[in-house]
Amino acid sequence: MEYSEGDVIVELALIFARPDKRIVVGIGDDAAVVTTSHRTVVTTDMAVEGIHFRREWSTPFDIGRRIVAANLADIFAMGATPDHLVVAISLTGDETLDWIKELAIGIDQEARKCSVTIIGGDVVRGPVVTIAVTALGRVGTPILRSGAKVGDEIVVTNLPGWSAAGLFLLENQIDLANLVSSGHAQRALSQYRAPLVAYEDVPFMRFAHSMSDLSDGLLIQGEQMARASGVKFNFDSQLILSHPDFAELNSLAQEVGEYVWDWIGAGGEDHVFLATGIGLPGFEIGRVEEGEGAQISGLMQEPKGFSHF
Amino acid sequence: MEYSEGDVIVELALIFARPDKRIVVGIGDDAAVVTTSHRTVVTTDMAVEGIHFRREWSTPFDIGRRIVAANLADIFAMGATPDHLVVAISLTGDETLDWIKELAIGIDQEARKCSVTIIGGDVVRGPVVTIAVTALGRVGTPILRSGAKVGDEIVVTNLPGWSAAGLFLLENQIDLANLVSSGHAQRALSQYRAPLVAYEDVPFMRFAHSMSDLSDGLLIQGEQMARASGVKFNFDSQLILSHPDFAELNSLAQEVGEYVWDWIGAGGEDHVFLATGIGLPGFEIGRVEEGEGAQISGLMQEPKGFSHF
Repeated sequence: MEYSEGDVIVELALIFARPDKRIVVGIGDDAAVVTTSHRTVVTTDMAVEGIHFRREWSTPFDIGRRIVAANLADIFAMGATPDHLVVAISLTGDETLDWIKELAIGIDQEARKCSVTIIGGDVVRGPVVTIAVTALGRVGTPILRSGAKVGDEIVVTNLPGWSAAGLFLLENQIDLANLVSSGHAQRALSQYRAPLVAYEDVPFMRFAHSMSDLSDGLLIQGEQMARASGVKFNFDSQLILSHPDFAELNSLAQEVGEYVWDWIGAGGEDHVFLATGIGLPGFEIGRVEEGEGAQISGLMQEPKGFSHF
Repeated sequence: MEYSEGDVIVELALIFARPDKRIVVGIGDDAAVVTTSHRTVVTTDMAVEGIHFRREWSTPFDIGRRIVAANLADIFAMGATPDHLVVAISLTGDETLDWIKELAIGIDQEARKCSVTIIGGDVVRGPVVTIAVTALGRVGTPILRSGAKVGDEIVVTNLPGWSAAGLFLLENQIDLANLVSSGHAQRALSQYRAPLVAYEDVPFMRFAHSMSDLSDGLLIQGEQMARASGVKFNFDSQLILSHPDFAELNSLAQEVGEYVWDWIGAGGEDHVFLATGIGLPGFEIGRVEEGEGAQISGLMQEPKGFSHF
């Protein structure tokens, strides 16, 4: 290790520095001070090397983008607008300063997409790279998981499953050169490494009755929202089949011998937004009904379960 | 592992739950929502097993208390009042649910001392236990590191060095039963495992020109404040010698063959508050002068350096 903690902090502060009238005290004191509205939204996420990412599978730029995307998606899923991030990182000491800077640039780039500034952090030593990101935002009336009503349309901002497909390709060391659907495979890999989150679609969801992002997958997240709302989430496989991206994802699944509904129903980490309401934008994939739980109706075979822990 | 991520979250939510009118949306949605004042203070800290704590040296209760104490001290060091915490934890899977609950109770107990509520978090898998805590608070005019003025008295809320002494005893496996100063050794161990932070003294520091908490040790933190303020921090060894606790710490140091000024000058993690100003409460240990850097004047031998990274 050819650098000190102080060197790292100086480099990160340079990468994260930018004019921001919301900041009263930035990086460098015991804590940061920001101007806030009456209601502040807060969420925290931790990503651990070997569990949530691997250095041989993703660039540091993508690792940084991905953890921030996951974090910001949680803020957007409340119907809120993110403003600031703090980032705590443990480093093993065998990373080059360039690797660390690229990670920071990935963090910063994803934040910039949403006009979010990194205002503080912590850099420590650890046996693996671990990144904990906490986002702060503002909201008027938050959109909760518990607001779904019987009769609501269920919509998604994109087809979920691409990130799970990318993870499958990496875990099974599939050689993309041999695939007919190598273009779709590239899309899956890219979505796994650093998901493209449809931040820009969320403002149009402001009349949603309930909303969440699909960090844990459609069925798990649907069931959580159903339980919180005291209703049933009935996803309709025929509606999902008609999504313009379904054919691509399905052809990739078939070529590698996987069941596409495992990816769609149980794969997480796409950070697609799942919302319910009437006349919402997004792609309709089902209805809220009386009852409990979540299911994809019309399938011959149930999707596999999925848990990240 | 006889429990799921869901079980852990349910247990933690029960431990952290309490009536709090500042909370609009608590644990269980994509993010928490709290009411805030115009200015929000934010800080984050990460503690890694094997680096910042060891399971064989500290109870989970103390591990939880210590990381929260470090975090809240940063908020207080801004002249601010903490309100809320979010906590991200990686677990290896070989912890019992009781161990995890005791950790959460330690986190909660330290937070309760300051009327702080845990409003959210993340629980993931990792190769070691890693805890990232982010605190939110409110402030009118923050007290910065950069406000020290030539002529200011430098004061501390307690004598620093006890935590470093405790770490020394643990690292060198000193048998307390054989020590004449075993009572002082107990105090050192206790301060290392979960520092008693003088939160209640901080409101009396509201007229301080500059303030920080001693997470990194007196000389390092003094130098940081001196640089930020464009002044010199001159700590006076004669003043420090007259602190009512000095004799105890010194007798322990002498008995174990250590130089007490290494502990006082370079040991961190006591989270003693270091402030400058005129007529402040606390114990005076020096003066702000023209010049640069930080030193303890009147010593025959310089204290060793100390860096946590």
